[in-house]
Amino acid sequence: MPHSPEEKRRVLARVRRIRGQAEALERALEAGADCAPVLQQIAAIRGAVNGLMSEVMEAHIRETFGHAAGSDEQRQARVAEMTALVRSYLK
Amino acid sequence: MPHSPEEKRRVLARVRRIRGQAEALERALEAGADCAPVLQQIAAIRGAVNGLMSEVMEAHIRETFGHAAGSDEQRQARVAEMTALVRSYLK
Amino acid sequence: MPHSPEEKRRVLARVRRIRGQAEALERALEAGADCAPVLQQIAAIRGAVNGLMSEVMEAHIRETFGHAAGSDEQRQARVAEMTALVRSYLK
Amino acid sequence: MPHSPEEKRRVLARVRRIRGQAEALERALEAGADCAPVLQQIAAIRGAVNGLMSEVMEAHIRETFGHAAGSDEQRQARVAEMTALVRSYLK
Repeated sequence: MPHSPEEKRRVLARVRRIRGQAEALERALEAGADCAPVLQQIAAIRGAVNGLMSEVMEAHIRETFGHAAGSDEQRQARVAEMTALVRSYLK
Repeated sequence: MPHSPEEKRRVLARVRRIRGQAEALERALEAGADCAPVLQQIAAIRGAVNGLMSEVMEAHIRETFGHAAGSDEQRQARVAEMTALVRSYLK
Repeated sequence: MPHSPEEKRRVLARVRRIRGQAEALERALEAGADCAPVLQQIAAIRGAVNGLMSEVMEAHIRETFGHAAGSDEQRQARVAEMTALVRSYLK
Repeated sequence: MPHSPEEKRRVLARVRRIRGQAEALERALEAGADCAPVLQQIAAIRGAVNGLMSEVMEAHIRETFGHAAGSDEQRQARVAEMTALVRSYLK
């Protein structure tokens, strides 16, 4: 998950960018960079992580609700799973 | 929105608690409270606002996806609306 | 805290605005407002609470470090108090 | 920055852990992991990034205010720099 090749490609690109940002930050710290640019890099990583979480959540909504449920029971189970995810991660 | 009486009651109770917290903070500031407890009160309000946002989002998911869509078009429109909300507010 | 009249005025204005936003949200919910504008109002309150926390923290930094410490011990105590606050509330 | 060997070691350990978490997430996504554990991994990275930001900010406070300013002017410049950082990153 996410299942569509296009979504998977997009999510993986985001994760690799975050890994690259962490590597750049590691080099900056080893080189003794100043505090202000270091904080700026960390804030950029934080923004990228939030964007990734949103992207994965959106993909999950599309997969979960993008086709009709087979039964009312299945529909309610999907809703319960999604509200639990929102409760856990909308912070 | 949210439409069910029980959900509306819960959401309103949360909003009123936030209003009460803001009033208590106002009184504390007027009385010249120390910084540390003031920050603690602000952090509590922040937590309450996040809880409120999650509660409203969960209620909206239940309402949007809790009954079958009348058509594939309607289903896709619901999904598009929900992913847009997640993108805007999952930060 | 904050002690300067100008800072206290600014912080109180922020708290009152948050209270006003909570009251407006309460009215919107009682009137049965749609989900999207309700989430927008909640996000605005969240932004205002973050701004308030920053304002109080900044005022506390100015008060704590704006005049010389009387001893090295006092300086270290101030630093320890401030780092503890950052650890608790920079989230 | 941070300058003390102990602080630098701690901060670097945090950055490397975040890089490791990003790598593990990349592998999980490539292996087609389910949404719920993926979101959990992303939330763990988010927590680690927040912890890193706090650690760097705390180190910067210790360095900036841990020894007496040479002049009132220098003290005010330090305070101004620190409040600007808090305003930018306490979000």
